[in-house]
Amino acid sequence: MRSVLSRKVAPRLQCIISRNATSSTPIREGVGSGSLNRRMVSSYTEDFDSDQKTALVLGSSGVLGKTLTKHLSRNLGMSVIGADVVAGEDESSLDAFVPIPTLDDKHPGLGEMTEALAIGLCEVLADGRDIDTIICAAGSWQSDPTAPNTASSDKDFIAGARSFGDNIDAMMAANLYPVLAAGYAANRFMAEEGLFVVIGATAALSPTPGMLGYGLGKSGAHHFVQTLGEISGKSATTKSRRRKARKLRQNNEYLDTLSVVGILPTTIDTPSNRESMSDHDFSQWTQPEDIAMEIGTWIKLPSMRPHSGGLVKVFPNKSGGASFNLVR
Amino acid sequence: MRSVLSRKVAPRLQCIISRNATSSTPIREGVGSGSLNRRMVSSYTEDFDSDQKTALVLGSSGVLGKTLTKHLSRNLGMSVIGADVVAGEDESSLDAFVPIPTLDDKHPGLGEMTEALAIGLCEVLADGRDIDTIICAAGSWQSDPTAPNTASSDKDFIAGARSFGDNIDAMMAANLYPVLAAGYAANRFMAEEGLFVVIGATAALSPTPGMLGYGLGKSGAHHFVQTLGEISGKSATTKSRRRKARKLRQNNEYLDTLSVVGILPTTIDTPSNRESMSDHDFSQWTQPEDIAMEIGTWIKLPSMRPHSGGLVKVFPNKSGGASFNLVR
Repeated sequence: MRSVLSRKVAPRLQCIISRNATSSTPIREGVGSGSLNRRMVSSYTEDFDSDQKTALVLGSSGVLGKTLTKHLSRNLGMSVIGADVVAGEDESSLDAFVPIPTLDDKHPGLGEMTEALAIGLCEVLADGRDIDTIICAAGSWQSDPTAPNTASSDKDFIAGARSFGDNIDAMMAANLYPVLAAGYAANRFMAEEGLFVVIGATAALSPTPGMLGYGLGKSGAHHFVQTLGEISGKSATTKSRRRKARKLRQNNEYLDTLSVVGILPTTIDTPSNRESMSDHDFSQWTQPEDIAMEIGTWIKLPSMRPHSGGLVKVFPNKSGGASFNLVR
Repeated sequence: MRSVLSRKVAPRLQCIISRNATSSTPIREGVGSGSLNRRMVSSYTEDFDSDQKTALVLGSSGVLGKTLTKHLSRNLGMSVIGADVVAGEDESSLDAFVPIPTLDDKHPGLGEMTEALAIGLCEVLADGRDIDTIICAAGSWQSDPTAPNTASSDKDFIAGARSFGDNIDAMMAANLYPVLAAGYAANRFMAEEGLFVVIGATAALSPTPGMLGYGLGKSGAHHFVQTLGEISGKSATTKSRRRKARKLRQNNEYLDTLSVVGILPTTIDTPSNRESMSDHDFSQWTQPEDIAMEIGTWIKLPSMRPHSGGLVKVFPNKSGGASFNLVR
């Protein structure tokens, strides 16, 4: 199997810096942090052999993404490939970076985003490695634009139509489409006993008045987790559905041992959330580090992973740290 | 209130035939079937005063859409505005038709679809009428494209990325985006005691292996129904959510009395479904006429409507007809 062979290949990483991965792409070599030669630093990871382990983090330039890449790289010694619509300011935890397009009139569809990620990964993984862990931490929040009403003029109503649609398109592109693009990439690059983590939202387990686009994006992300979960190895589905699922697996052996899990925070403690909700109780929010620690445990100890397709709520403990409760 | 005033205005309908509603649009007048002057024909409708009642049917050119428009127009005497990506061959049940764009590289986003519908409705409803019933019967089904696997070449993998993304984009554009575009239009044009029906899918209440794009589109449609349902009048939500919801209603009085309901068939008995699943038992499929009859009852007798935000499964009875069971 490819996933076994690839572990014997010494990785040599490249950092793709072009914003447009579909054109001829300037390559900058050796920009990574050299994490592959680092040793593990804490007792938490002391018996975890990560020398050849690779992670892909979507949304690597965001607050959660940066926390995740730091943890995987520095504490678990993994090689981390980042992907985002913009490069982060500090890439010292990344061994490679794949730019993905912001979807707009010029870059209209999920096809383009999926293709950009696929092209980038083909370059980064040209040495034959595969990916042990994929984490989709990309996301963005906007409330619904002000709706028109029965007294609106034609002009206001028509202008509002564009804002309404653009808002939902943007929320889909930020919260759902990176998950789907990564889901496609998993077909080819996911290693044995792979872990695929998607950051969803507790809010999207229920209707989402006032934030329809965000809710659609995150509930779509949950639907993806449950759907991929149903055809992967450690799912909690019924026998008859398992039988049907096996027929759909085609030649994708990675599905036999894959765990795909959604982590559903309420609010993550980030500077921008503090700014926009300054009157809230920040102690009720989840620390990015706690999410990184939990995922780290799942990487290190596959037996600790929830069943594939599981949705896991996370909320802060009063005594510090966070609780992770399987809800679906 | 606008919805009361508008009932006094004698409607004069127009049929928009241009494919591009955003440019200067050729108007063909008087192409409607004159249904407004028809009398009701069956005892089922004999005490239903529909003279000024208007319906908007998205997906009016499809098999279900045509059945719906015929029933509303001929049996309930309603004035029906159709909307679809292509005009149907037989428009005799329609009083007006609004073309909406197929989303592709040239017409990239939901903003464009919502705008096209808004522009079309402003023309058709320039006389000040509003819409009593909106039905989203638009939809399409495609299975997932064949996925690559660990042995795929770069070339096959990258080509597949485009197919994967395009498939999901197409399923979103066909199954979810017309619902959202109509949801926007409801803000301005929905009458008092309005009914907004969305055709979902029983399949999308569960994970959808083998048809991820379709499942995402339909589960998104369910999320929309539940979200709009939570802020409308007859919802089944908790008191605290109702309180929050009221704050989100702004000036949209139509929400006080709106019922938004999802109808979730398994398979609808259509010629194309018979062709593609010729080995199935067609008696287990739902007749389009049964869906039309049920919606007709909800139009005529608002007390028969499920709570707003409700999802209703439909399946055929052994004795003929169909059962409608509220499941969410």
